[in-house]
Formats: sequence, C-alpha cells, structure tokens
Amino acid sequence: MNDASAIPSTTIERLPMYLRCLLEAQSQRMPLVNSQILADMCGTNAAQVRKDFSYLGELGTRGIGYDVNALVAHISSVLGITELRRAILVGFGRFGSALLGYPGFADRGFEIVAVLDADQGKVGTQADGVTVTDVADLEDVVAGTGAEIAILATPARATQAVVERLVGAGIRGILNLAPVRLSVPEGVAVRQVCLSTELQVLSFYLAQKAL
Amino acid sequence: MNDASAIPSTTIERLPMYLRCLLEAQSQRMPLVNSQILADMCGTNAAQVRKDFSYLGELGTRGIGYDVNALVAHISSVLGITELRRAILVGFGRFGSALLGYPGFADRGFEIVAVLDADQGKVGTQADGVTVTDVADLEDVVAGTGAEIAILATPARATQAVVERLVGAGIRGILNLAPVRLSVPEGVAVRQVCLSTELQVLSFYLAQKAL
Repeated sequence: MNDASAIPSTTIERLPMYLRCLLEAQSQRMPLVNSQILADMCGTNAAQVRKDFSYLGELGTRGIGYDVNALVAHISSVLGITELRRAILVGFGRFGSALLGYPGFADRGFEIVAVLDADQGKVGTQADGVTVTDVADLEDVVAGTGAEIAILATPARATQAVVERLVGAGIRGILNLAPVRLSVPEGVAVRQVCLSTELQVLSFYLAQKAL
Repeated sequence: MNDASAIPSTTIERLPMYLRCLLEAQSQRMPLVNSQILADMCGTNAAQVRKDFSYLGELGTRGIGYDVNALVAHISSVLGITELRRAILVGFGRFGSALLGYPGFADRGFEIVAVLDADQGKVGTQADGVTVTDVADLEDVVAGTGAEIAILATPARATQAVVERLVGAGIRGILNLAPVRLSVPEGVAVRQVCLSTELQVLSFYLAQKAL
C-alpha cells in the first residue's frame, strides 16, 4: 500500500461512499467497474474517482477498469474495517437510545459494546441486549471492553469533561453528536455531526434562491 | 451585502460555527472580538477567520476587531435564519422520533411543523405536540404548512420515491439521514448525514495510528 498518511482528508471522506457503491456493484455481481460507472453510482465524476484512487496505489487496468472484489478488499483495508471495531455509546437519552438501534453501525463494521449514562434511573436497565452502565465506571468499561471509539450523545455541558476522561482511558476516536466543540490532544480523531449546522447550511441555499 | 452566491461552500459550512461562537461571546457580554479571539473560540486560526469573513463584505475595523452584535445579525442574515424556517420530518421510527425532540432545531431557527410516516399504526398519534400524518398526504402537508425543508429519517429503500414527491411538492432543501444517496434536480439543496461514514473515517485514522 502507498503511504496512507499522504491521502488527503477530502479523499478519505469519500472512501466510505466508494465502498458503499462497490458493495452495491458486488451485490449486482458486476466483476469490473470503470471510473465512469463508479462515478455515476456515487454521484460524482470520473476524474474525481481516478484522482482519489491514485492515492491508493495501482488499482485498475487502463481500458479495462477496476476489479470490484479486489477494490472492496483494498478500501476496507485502508479504512481499517476488515475487523469489527468496538465502540461505546455515552449518553442514553432520546438521541442516544435511537443511535443504539441504528442498523448501519453493525452493517459497516462497528459494534456498540457498552452504553453509559449518568442517570441512576437508567443504570442497570437493558436495551438492545446491552446493559446501561454508570458513567462513573467509564475507565473500567473502556479497559474491560477494549473499545477504541466513543460515540457521544451527551448533554452539551457535560461533554468536554467526559471527553477528557475518555482520552485518559485510551479512546482515540470520537464521534461527537453533542452540539459543542471538543478540545482534544493531538492523536485523537474527532468527527463532529451537528444537525443544526446542516439545517443552517440548507437555509443559506434557500435564502439565495429567494433573492 | 456582497454577492452571497460567490461565497465558497467551505466558508458557508463554517458560518454556523462562527455564529455559535459569536452567540457565546454575546452571552458573555463581549462587545468586540478580533479574529484571533474568535479563532480560539471556534478552534480554527485567525487567517481562516479573516479569509472567510472577507467574502461577507467589510465587517471589522483593522486594529479594533468585529462588533459582536453586528456580526451576529449579519451572519444570521447571510444564513437566512432571521425568521423561523419551517421543516417537515418524514419517517417517524426510532431515529425520527429522537429527531423531533432535538432541542437544537428550535434554538437555531427551525420549526418542525409536521411529521409524516407510512405506518398506519403511527398515523394520528401525538408526539411533542405534533400529530403524525399519513405520508400519502405529503403534498397537502407541504402546501398547507408552507414548509421549505424536509428532514428524512426514512428507510433507505423508500427514500428516493419520497424525495421525488417532496421536490414535486415544492421542497427545496433536504437534510437526509437515510443511508442512501439522493438524486435531485438542480436547484434543490441536499445535506447528507451518514453516521456510518463518520465512523469509517474515524476508523481510517485509528488504523493509521496502529501501523
């Protein structure tokens, strides 16, 4: 493999999309795709596909295309999802409990191995086969499960304190759904999803059209 | 205002973050901020702030900074959120019902005026003061509420057909939480949030660290 650390972040962000389209091609028993077919499936253009794939090494054959099975294996390997990755969910309110049932996690190589909450009324209850644990035991849960990723659906004010404990416990990847910016040391990857931000961006485009 | 259509999409995507930090500054009764203070609050750098704001017109005074109240008003205006925008929620499963209670929507200028689902067992039930409507009545709901935005928490397979009806009914902004790529005509803005994609991007960074 080429040096993965040289892959631009914008390319990395598109790899899951390519993988999803390639899995679709696989399920349709397509042995080969070319960059144009894949671009059409993914809603991008062929030049973008070729450029992105150029960072992944020598993948295709000019005039023939890409071997679908080989490309699925290669992108899965680059994304580090050839084995199941363990995640914990912190915050078991309305949003957190909806996340626990999200079918896309298990389908895509992630397992939620523990759920934590500060509410003693929730601690000890069962949901989707997982028992809610007291957030006070966070360090023990991370050590005991070997989880690498934390998904945060905590109240905004509580989030940074939880993050510091997670990082101290060895968590190196955080998916933050709380509407607050996190401060983390170097070496910890954070992805922030903020639905209000997405709506405000939509609003911008609507406002332009109304002018 | 400068021509808002000339603002790069990466700048637009950062405007909600600046607005959130400026509202925080406002709540702390700070009359002025400079680009360095704002950058620190937002977790970016001062050059980025100045570059982004250069697209918004003449906003600050060199050596003095930006007037917080004026900047809040200006960014809100650019984002088109000076009035409440109406949205409908399609799909009232576990994820959809969690979204209905998401406090960030109302706080940031969005009101969910209707909830639709195909399940006759849910139609007619009340949740958070909104009655679930049959998705068969989608066109009437959009016309009757004047909604501009649709938030989709539909099953993947049902989503594209719903999108075509939404666009036909006049919806011009879609926040898609279903794990499927949408095809929309020009003039319809789509924001896609895929939690599995975010986890796969985190996984990439974890895999790099393990090498």
